[in-house]
Amino acid sequence: MSDQMSRITLARRPSGAPVPDDFKLVTEARPEPAEGEVLIEVTHLSLDPYMRGRMDDAKSYAPSVDIGGTMTGQGVGRVIASKADGFTKGDMVTGMTGWASHACLPASELHKLDGTLPPSTALGVLGMPGLTGWVGLHRFGQPKAGETLVVAAATGPVGSMVGQLAKAVGLRTVAIAGGPEKCALATDTFGFDAAIDHRAHDDARSLRKTIAEAAPDGVDIYWENVGGKVLDAVMPLMNVHGRIPVCGMIAWYGGANVEDTNQLPAMWRSILVKRLQVSGFIIFDHWDQYPAFLADVGPKVAAGEIAYLEDVAEGLENAPYAFIAMLKGGNTGKQIVKL
Amino acid sequence: MSDQMSRITLARRPSGAPVPDDFKLVTEARPEPAEGEVLIEVTHLSLDPYMRGRMDDAKSYAPSVDIGGTMTGQGVGRVIASKADGFTKGDMVTGMTGWASHACLPASELHKLDGTLPPSTALGVLGMPGLTGWVGLHRFGQPKAGETLVVAAATGPVGSMVGQLAKAVGLRTVAIAGGPEKCALATDTFGFDAAIDHRAHDDARSLRKTIAEAAPDGVDIYWENVGGKVLDAVMPLMNVHGRIPVCGMIAWYGGANVEDTNQLPAMWRSILVKRLQVSGFIIFDHWDQYPAFLADVGPKVAAGEIAYLEDVAEGLENAPYAFIAMLKGGNTGKQIVKL
Repeated sequence: MSDQMSRITLARRPSGAPVPDDFKLVTEARPEPAEGEVLIEVTHLSLDPYMRGRMDDAKSYAPSVDIGGTMTGQGVGRVIASKADGFTKGDMVTGMTGWASHACLPASELHKLDGTLPPSTALGVLGMPGLTGWVGLHRFGQPKAGETLVVAAATGPVGSMVGQLAKAVGLRTVAIAGGPEKCALATDTFGFDAAIDHRAHDDARSLRKTIAEAAPDGVDIYWENVGGKVLDAVMPLMNVHGRIPVCGMIAWYGGANVEDTNQLPAMWRSILVKRLQVSGFIIFDHWDQYPAFLADVGPKVAAGEIAYLEDVAEGLENAPYAFIAMLKGGNTGKQIVKL
Repeated sequence: MSDQMSRITLARRPSGAPVPDDFKLVTEARPEPAEGEVLIEVTHLSLDPYMRGRMDDAKSYAPSVDIGGTMTGQGVGRVIASKADGFTKGDMVTGMTGWASHACLPASELHKLDGTLPPSTALGVLGMPGLTGWVGLHRFGQPKAGETLVVAAATGPVGSMVGQLAKAVGLRTVAIAGGPEKCALATDTFGFDAAIDHRAHDDARSLRKTIAEAAPDGVDIYWENVGGKVLDAVMPLMNVHGRIPVCGMIAWYGGANVEDTNQLPAMWRSILVKRLQVSGFIIFDHWDQYPAFLADVGPKVAAGEIAYLEDVAEGLENAPYAFIAMLKGGNTGKQIVKL
C-alpha cells in the first residue's frame, strides 16, 4: 500500500453548480519520476474559482479537464524521490500537482520554497491569488493616490491582496463581501475603509445606494471578481476614465441569465460615456512577474505588513466538498486542502 | 430681414427615436460679436450620432441640450464680422456653431481652413469623425500587420476612416454595413477586404456565421460603433488579446433591451477568457491630437489615398429630417447639411 496514490478525477461535467457526484476519488499505483522529474508527496492543495471553468467543455484559456482526468490545481509538497538536478529528498516545492496525493513533475515546472513562511502561503498570499492581485492592480488597475477602489469578494485571497496594496498606495478602499463576519474581517484584518454585505441587499439598486455612500467620490477602480449583482450595482458609479480589471465572474460560473434586459446596453453606455477601460486578464499570461512579485510582497508578508487568511479543509477526499462550498462563498480566506 | 438668423432648437426630449416635433426652427435677431469673437455665416453643418445623446437628460460626457436650446454641433462657415485678431471677413472657419445659420464664437474656439480641400471635409474625413477613427484605431485598437479588423457602420465617416487606416497598416478589414449598396461601397470605394450586410441576417447567430467566414483567423480588433446585434455576433469571434474600442452604440441610443438574457454573462466571459481590452473613448478628450491628425491624414486625402463620401441635405430646416434618417442608417457617407 505504500506505493499507492490517490487523486480526484472529473467524473462528469457539472450542469450549473458542481455536486459531489461530479468528482471521483481514484486510488492507483504511484508513478516513478522520469529523468528530469521529481516525485512529490503533496501536503497542501489549492482550491480556486477558476477550476470551475476547467470542468466545462467550453473553449477557454486552458484545456478542459477530461472526463476521468485529474482535477488541475496548484499544490505544495515534499520531494520524496528526485531524478532532477537541484532537487533532493525533503525539499519543499510548489507546482501544478493537481488534486492528488502525489505527483511526478519536471523540475522546470517546480518552484522551491525557501522555508521562511508556512508552505501553504505559496498557494495563497504568495501564490497565484497573490500574484493575480499584484499584477492586475498595478498593470490594469493603475491605482493613483486619492482614488477609490471597490473590490468584490474582498476577503478572498485575491481581493484582500488588492485591497491592501491599493490602501498602501493611498486609495480609499471599499470591500464587498458576503455576510457580517466577512465584512468585519475586511475592515479589521485587511484594513478596508468600508465593507458592504451584498447579502443584505436583495437587488442591485439597493446595493448601489450603499456603495455610493461608501464611495462618495465615485469609483475609479472596480476589481471584478464576481459579475452578477455587484457588477450591475457598481457600473453606474464608475468615474470618468475608470478602470475595471476583469479577473473572475464567480456569480456567473456555470451559466447565468440576467434579469434586467437593459443591463447590457446600460453597461455599454457607461463604458462609452465614462471612457472606461475594461481589461480581461488571466494570471497564466503573467507568470514571468512571479519573481518580481515575490521580491516585493514576500518581505511584507514576513513582516506582517500584508495580512492573509486561510481556510483549511482536511483530507484529499474532502476537496470536492470544500470546492463546492467555496463556490457558494462558504469559505473564509484562501481555501486550502491539507493532506 | 438681413440681420436675422435661424436656429434649430430642442423642443422636447425624445422618447426613443427622435421625431420632427422634437425640434423647432426659431428665427431671431442675429448677434453681434463681442471683443475676441467673430460672427460666422454657416455654410455647412455636421450631423453626428452622438447628438442623439445630447437630447436626453441623462448624465453624459457633455451637458444635455436644454429644452429651447440650440442643438449642438460642428459647422463650417464664412466670417462676416470679426472683433478678433487674426480673423478677417471672408475667412473660412470651423467650430461648434450649433444647428444655426449664424454663430458668434470666440476666436480661440475656431480653426481656420486652408482652402486646399472643400470646406465640408472639415466636418467629416478631416473633422471630428476622421479624428475619431485615427485616434481610436491607433491608440485603442493598436493594429498590427496580419491581424483582422471588423468595423460596424463601415461606410460611415468614422468606420471608413478606420477601415482605410487599418488596411494601410496591413490588416484584413471586414466591413459590416446595412444593405447591398453600402456593402459595395465598402469594398469598392473604401477598400475593405469583405463586406457583410447585417440586414440580410435576422439574428446574431446567422450574422456571426458570415463574419466568421469573412474573418477565418478570428477578430483582433472590433471597432464598436453600434452595439446590438453586431456586438452580440462578433464577441465570440474575438481572438485572445483582442481590442474593442467603444466609440458608439447607435443601435442602443434612445434605450434598448437585449432579447438574450445570457448575452451579458457570455460577453463578460469572453472579456475574461480572451483577455480582451475594451476601451470606451470620447473624441472630445483627444482634440490635442488634431494638428497631428491633420498633418498625417490631410495630405493623404488631398492625394486621393483616403476616400471619403458625403451625403448632403439642403437647408437648415431639413436638418431634423436628415438627422432622423441618419439614425436609421438612411444616409450614405458623412451626413452634411448645406445651408
